[in-house]
Amino acid sequence: MNVDRSSLQTGTQVRQACRARIFTGQTSGLAPGFAQANLVILRKQDASQFLEFCQKNPKPCPLLEVTEAGDPGLQKLAQNTDLRTDLPRYRVWKQGALVEEPTDISQLWQEDLVSFLIGCSFTFEAALIDSGLSVRHIDLGLNVPMYRTTIPCEPAGIFSGPLVVSMRPFKPADAIRAVQITGRYPAVHGAPVHLGFPEQLGITDLTQPDFGDAVPVEPDELPVFWACGVTPQAVLMQAKLEFAITHSPGCMFVSDLKDEALAIS
Amino acid sequence: MNVDRSSLQTGTQVRQACRARIFTGQTSGLAPGFAQANLVILRKQDASQFLEFCQKNPKPCPLLEVTEAGDPGLQKLAQNTDLRTDLPRYRVWKQGALVEEPTDISQLWQEDLVSFLIGCSFTFEAALIDSGLSVRHIDLGLNVPMYRTTIPCEPAGIFSGPLVVSMRPFKPADAIRAVQITGRYPAVHGAPVHLGFPEQLGITDLTQPDFGDAVPVEPDELPVFWACGVTPQAVLMQAKLEFAITHSPGCMFVSDLKDEALAIS
Repeated sequence: MNVDRSSLQTGTQVRQACRARIFTGQTSGLAPGFAQANLVILRKQDASQFLEFCQKNPKPCPLLEVTEAGDPGLQKLAQNTDLRTDLPRYRVWKQGALVEEPTDISQLWQEDLVSFLIGCSFTFEAALIDSGLSVRHIDLGLNVPMYRTTIPCEPAGIFSGPLVVSMRPFKPADAIRAVQITGRYPAVHGAPVHLGFPEQLGITDLTQPDFGDAVPVEPDELPVFWACGVTPQAVLMQAKLEFAITHSPGCMFVSDLKDEALAIS
Repeated sequence: MNVDRSSLQTGTQVRQACRARIFTGQTSGLAPGFAQANLVILRKQDASQFLEFCQKNPKPCPLLEVTEAGDPGLQKLAQNTDLRTDLPRYRVWKQGALVEEPTDISQLWQEDLVSFLIGCSFTFEAALIDSGLSVRHIDLGLNVPMYRTTIPCEPAGIFSGPLVVSMRPFKPADAIRAVQITGRYPAVHGAPVHLGFPEQLGITDLTQPDFGDAVPVEPDELPVFWACGVTPQAVLMQAKLEFAITHSPGCMFVSDLKDEALAIS
């Protein structure tokens, strides 16, 4: 049973389709204008240290909302939502290994689980496109290229690891506009962390991303690098927690918040 | 007769010292936190075309205030000011040639003169330094390097010519901060117009600026280029007007406006 993607125009519509299990796919392009978010669910014993990690590393881990332990609902990002059913697909991790990819985690729910909703670059990419800029990987129908850097995140207890960045190439004047536009969205990674010299980040070959797809960078373009939401996922995997749940890649939580609500004025 | 520079802490104090002819020097570093401005005075017959030029080229020519013909006072930038006496030194131009550099233009005043106050990069440089960035030419005690580009301004009647840019080198992360900070000041040239590839602006040798002093650009730095207030001066000279008055280089109008008042919130 599958729903027509074009009928999913709001956060509520996407979440209802997920809950009814008539939608289990990737959320990119759904509910245009509504902010999407990464999901991380941890046991309370791990949650406070992960919260500390996010607060020390706000560019890769911009927290949009953190729940009370055991509460599958949200206060800010959406009304009447249930995080156990309202995403298209989840990943369940045990001892750092992926064990299953269910479309519903109600059976796995426990009273000590804390949910972290983390900002997603879809929001600033929409703002870039609305401003008339071309985003290379979107134009090419590819996933954004992502790279592990040699820049360490600020560690917090068991959580540590390198900053992961995403890369989008722009001509210089457009790179300047991209800094200005994404700088308005600190809740979704904000302004770039670097531009121009990949080797300063420890990236030796732009054609070999660690995640996602390579995209061409023309000689008159600068590679522009943003802190990436893959950073907390990589950090989580490395911490080899006994138990964790995340969204499945590309299958994000779609909120009731408009992208523009995440912009500073 | 000379005043102690350290006693000139406000726009009013600088202007009073100019009017009393006890101060005739450069204004850089005076009245910290108060916005300074470039001055251009034209006959009414030339003023409307120059206004059009400024409005077509807001990055090099950000207009802070334009007076009524014959009025040597201001409404927005300062109270109780007289533009004929309140700058340290002026330049008088006839047929595009510099003819004198007086400290008072009262004798030259005519009822058809219109004054243009144009934003100055001192304001955004103060903001950069307040944010903890180092501005190379200031650290070195030099004038900012400026370059004629191959980018034409939008012409308006007799006013035309190339965009002139100033250059400040920064490491990539600081370049990103500099874009964000100066982008808040559209009234004083705003965000950079370019970074990274001087040759795209027609600049073949950064060590040979057309105006000001060369500064070193390290291998791990990007040259960052801003539209420069020398642009309207070069355009004016090229137009060879029968009569014009400007401030003498570095001898700016010091306003009552705080720099921060020129920032967008």
